[in-house]
Amino acid sequence: MAGHSWQWWECPVLAVNPVLRYRFLIETTHQGRPAWEWLNAEGLFDRDTPDFQDFRLIAHAPAPDWLHRAVIYQVFPDRFARSRDALTRATPDWAVRCGWDEPVQRAGEVTPRQLYGGDLDGITGHLDHIQALGASVLYLTPFFPARSNHRYDATTFTKVDPLLGGDEALIRLVDAAHHRGLRVIGDLTANHSGDAHEWFTAALEDPHSAEAGFYYFNEDHTTYASWFGVPSLPKFNWNSPELRRRFITGPSSVISRWLAPPFNLDGWRIDVANMTGRHGTDDMNREIATLIRHTMQSIKPDAVLLAESTNDAAADFDGTTWHGAMTYSNFTRPLWQWLTKEDAPVNFFGTPIPGPNRISAKNFVQTHQALAAAFPWRIRTQNMNALNSHDTARAATVMIPGGQLVGLAMIFTLPGIPTLFAGDEFGLEGINGEEARTPMPWAEPGKIRASLGPYIADLSRLRRELPALHEGNLRWLYAGDDVLMYVREHNEVCVLIAASRAAFEAVELPVSLIHSGSGNATPSPLWGCGTVTARSTSQSITFSGSGPSLQLWKLPGIKVPTGKSAFHMSTATPKNDPTGATTDLPRPDQAPQLQAATQHH
Amino acid sequence: MAGHSWQWWECPVLAVNPVLRYRFLIETTHQGRPAWEWLNAEGLFDRDTPDFQDFRLIAHAPAPDWLHRAVIYQVFPDRFARSRDALTRATPDWAVRCGWDEPVQRAGEVTPRQLYGGDLDGITGHLDHIQALGASVLYLTPFFPARSNHRYDATTFTKVDPLLGGDEALIRLVDAAHHRGLRVIGDLTANHSGDAHEWFTAALEDPHSAEAGFYYFNEDHTTYASWFGVPSLPKFNWNSPELRRRFITGPSSVISRWLAPPFNLDGWRIDVANMTGRHGTDDMNREIATLIRHTMQSIKPDAVLLAESTNDAAADFDGTTWHGAMTYSNFTRPLWQWLTKEDAPVNFFGTPIPGPNRISAKNFVQTHQALAAAFPWRIRTQNMNALNSHDTARAATVMIPGGQLVGLAMIFTLPGIPTLFAGDEFGLEGINGEEARTPMPWAEPGKIRASLGPYIADLSRLRRELPALHEGNLRWLYAGDDVLMYVREHNEVCVLIAASRAAFEAVELPVSLIHSGSGNATPSPLWGCGTVTARSTSQSITFSGSGPSLQLWKLPGIKVPTGKSAFHMSTATPKNDPTGATTDLPRPDQAPQLQAATQHH
Repeated sequence: MAGHSWQWWECPVLAVNPVLRYRFLIETTHQGRPAWEWLNAEGLFDRDTPDFQDFRLIAHAPAPDWLHRAVIYQVFPDRFARSRDALTRATPDWAVRCGWDEPVQRAGEVTPRQLYGGDLDGITGHLDHIQALGASVLYLTPFFPARSNHRYDATTFTKVDPLLGGDEALIRLVDAAHHRGLRVIGDLTANHSGDAHEWFTAALEDPHSAEAGFYYFNEDHTTYASWFGVPSLPKFNWNSPELRRRFITGPSSVISRWLAPPFNLDGWRIDVANMTGRHGTDDMNREIATLIRHTMQSIKPDAVLLAESTNDAAADFDGTTWHGAMTYSNFTRPLWQWLTKEDAPVNFFGTPIPGPNRISAKNFVQTHQALAAAFPWRIRTQNMNALNSHDTARAATVMIPGGQLVGLAMIFTLPGIPTLFAGDEFGLEGINGEEARTPMPWAEPGKIRASLGPYIADLSRLRRELPALHEGNLRWLYAGDDVLMYVREHNEVCVLIAASRAAFEAVELPVSLIHSGSGNATPSPLWGCGTVTARSTSQSITFSGSGPSLQLWKLPGIKVPTGKSAFHMSTATPKNDPTGATTDLPRPDQAPQLQAATQHH
Repeated sequence: MAGHSWQWWECPVLAVNPVLRYRFLIETTHQGRPAWEWLNAEGLFDRDTPDFQDFRLIAHAPAPDWLHRAVIYQVFPDRFARSRDALTRATPDWAVRCGWDEPVQRAGEVTPRQLYGGDLDGITGHLDHIQALGASVLYLTPFFPARSNHRYDATTFTKVDPLLGGDEALIRLVDAAHHRGLRVIGDLTANHSGDAHEWFTAALEDPHSAEAGFYYFNEDHTTYASWFGVPSLPKFNWNSPELRRRFITGPSSVISRWLAPPFNLDGWRIDVANMTGRHGTDDMNREIATLIRHTMQSIKPDAVLLAESTNDAAADFDGTTWHGAMTYSNFTRPLWQWLTKEDAPVNFFGTPIPGPNRISAKNFVQTHQALAAAFPWRIRTQNMNALNSHDTARAATVMIPGGQLVGLAMIFTLPGIPTLFAGDEFGLEGINGEEARTPMPWAEPGKIRASLGPYIADLSRLRRELPALHEGNLRWLYAGDDVLMYVREHNEVCVLIAASRAAFEAVELPVSLIHSGSGNATPSPLWGCGTVTARSTSQSITFSGSGPSLQLWKLPGIKVPTGKSAFHMSTATPKNDPTGATTDLPRPDQAPQLQAATQHH
């Protein structure tokens, strides 16, 4: 190896435990003497490192293969679309009926009670729209009867809310979706029910009932534990064998019945999964997650199990439990921070910081690597990469003009499942999660801020068609302040991605860092927004561009082993070249020499 | 706060879970705009950080208070001393009898069979020696009958090896030790027994015996799992309720009987604790550790439970399980690396690296912080800080001339329990753990390389007498290449420690970084080796010294809350002073401004 280059190794490994941790010891020299560095999943270190940052091979049954090519489209049913029947339904006592164009209250007592009346047949009527975006999975927030518009306070898990059209409407929706090749996943609270849930009312009435054991009551049965102390969301006590039976393992359990005919859901997204089974000194989280996973695997091996864990999710996602995380810390948060306006007036994930503080692309990569390191690579490729969600502000409100385009391209081209929240295609705004739930402006063209549908459709198509984008390795090439470059590598074709938040010029990278072997050194432009150019010499390629901009180039495929169970690693080693542009590559530490880590599942 | 200074905060926290993680959000400015940084247990970061690095408050029952003032002296019974009776004992069939001055074989088939014949009465006869060093805890490696000199392959847990003098010798030893105020802890393999163990022979004979369930046999009962595949060490299967009963919970369990009269041990060190209960997809480690802890707590609340976990131990030590770790990664390894000779010809903890690669003091602190961060502070103060052990090379062989003095002072003045291996006081050498077990040269003055007894005795006395050293906070002051400075803080008196591996001059620190308030800025010299001077002005103190050197100074006490359950934090904030010597302070990242974290249990 001389100058800037990289190479691949392959070796068989016998996994003695289901999670196999490893790191690489790099032999090098320092001031003429032998020296050593560790390469782990966070990066390169000139010191000993915690096991937590190690690479991980997992020997568990993999998630369904379709998940890796998925594009998820999230719908909050009350705000998506109304069928004709929706207008005929009576308003329940808890609700405040709102007109479709009435503003959503950002906060307050009335916020969860604003009922806009979107229903499942309304969604069924817009499957053309969803499919035109290239989405392949429709993710519905809860559809159970409840006493709020978000429905995370279910009153039962045995039927679909009649306000949404009832069981038949779900059957119609899933059938229509499946007919088009779209999958549908539901949203389930394994941490709590609503306080009007049939189990909880039975529990309240009779301290000796089986259901009383489903919750954490105090000794005299007058108070109970609840989600964040909100009394309408009583917390499940997973010590109860009967709860385990009814919810997970029994013949017609909550987990099972909606995956089976006639409903045929394709999986679950589990709400506040990180809190599930944890209370005081109780920690049954792993046990319950594993039980759900095994149950689903035995009854519907093709179903996926995603789980919300909004902060640092890695410790709970080792491959034994949930397939992938709906999390924000390793991706959405640093993405916002890189692309944020100055002083974006948004709720930054509930932190005391008034908004996302602006960071460099280098810091984006450092943050992403630090917070993604402890996920096995396979899990990283299954995490939900959300631009925003029903729980966050909208990217359009957070980001600089044009930043949303860059952000969208990054959720489609970095490892993970691109996850859109309905309305992203219209550039909808929102300073917090509540405002983000503004109804879809189907009949109000004036409320459409941007028509991003074709842009998203292109990204979906590219991701579906190019294996590099849905299962390729990742290698970071460059990260400065305003520019981020990386390559996704695969046998057939590799894709080089340059993302910028501001105009830039003269980012010069050695050819040997970008692709191996001989052949044409000029990347072939594939797709993008803004203007980005690449000028090649035999030694280097120099990039310039407008900003914000986004450009994808094709590169020749490289010999990457294709076995799904294989795991590979390459490193870029621009040794002894302190002048190269690559000295700006992100490094988690002061370690010299080696720079970039690539992984492949 | 102006310039270099620090301050203390105190606040009550309600721990809802037994382990409470937290970090501090520091509001600052960057280029005239508001900016934020996180302070966690590893240090200061200008980006989001994994939860793994958070500070941890633990709400579990604390370890016995005496542990915090302990100085541990480790004895490998076969090599410490022989009583008169030792010479009269027959040589068992597995053993090769050796004369006391015969060289230990560094490796090979005969190594575990070399029997030098040290016994427990031999130790009893040298309690004066041990106590003169200021040690307060005698830690005996296993004393059960076995078929090797290390005795980690016990043939029974119900009696003391007759070769060591049998049960009565242990009773005599513990009685004599207790009479002097010395405590005694034993060493137990919870991961495996020997293949000649009475349980294993019963298991081998009868696949239907209760004991067959104690091990991991294959289906046709012909092979079994063992420690690292070594067939003489069959691995326990903790799925067996009967094993749990006999080993831990039963009325005369292994764990219990040696803590009770007439033996009265003061605790256990558990061998390869990190492997215990882990095999393939089984992971009962936490369950078994907790069961042992609770059992010991219920029968002898004053007993300690330490556990070997040689690499990164933090994930297993959250306060629920073992009290403290016998581990090397966060302390012993970087200590060796800082103080190593060039090309020390020693086994570096089994790594493929030929010896400890030399690192700077700054790297020492970075490594220590990275690998100690995930231990709750309370556990950090209970970890065994070993200069070396029966499993490692000897520090005297690893370190530069005089380095052992610096290393000894560091194990006594950094958080953790100073742990000596018998022979350290004579400067004994050894290129690996086997050679480190060379018999104590009681009658061979020519084999004594250094008489460090008085030096160690001074350190023991200082640590015992000065609460700052056994329960004070830690604040790093300076870490360059050759010099490391830190302060242990307490109400009565604070202690500033400067350690160097080479001569140095003009390390200038601002007075306000070193101690708060007004008063005499000159530290008062307390104790040391080598020559170190501190020249004060009203603004700064400048340190110079020979090398290797070690100096302790007294500083006035500071108002640190004394409540044992309290946890406090201070930060040194030399803002806007890029010229200060403190810019050399170790930083885990590129974060500007804030520098040092102090913790107090």
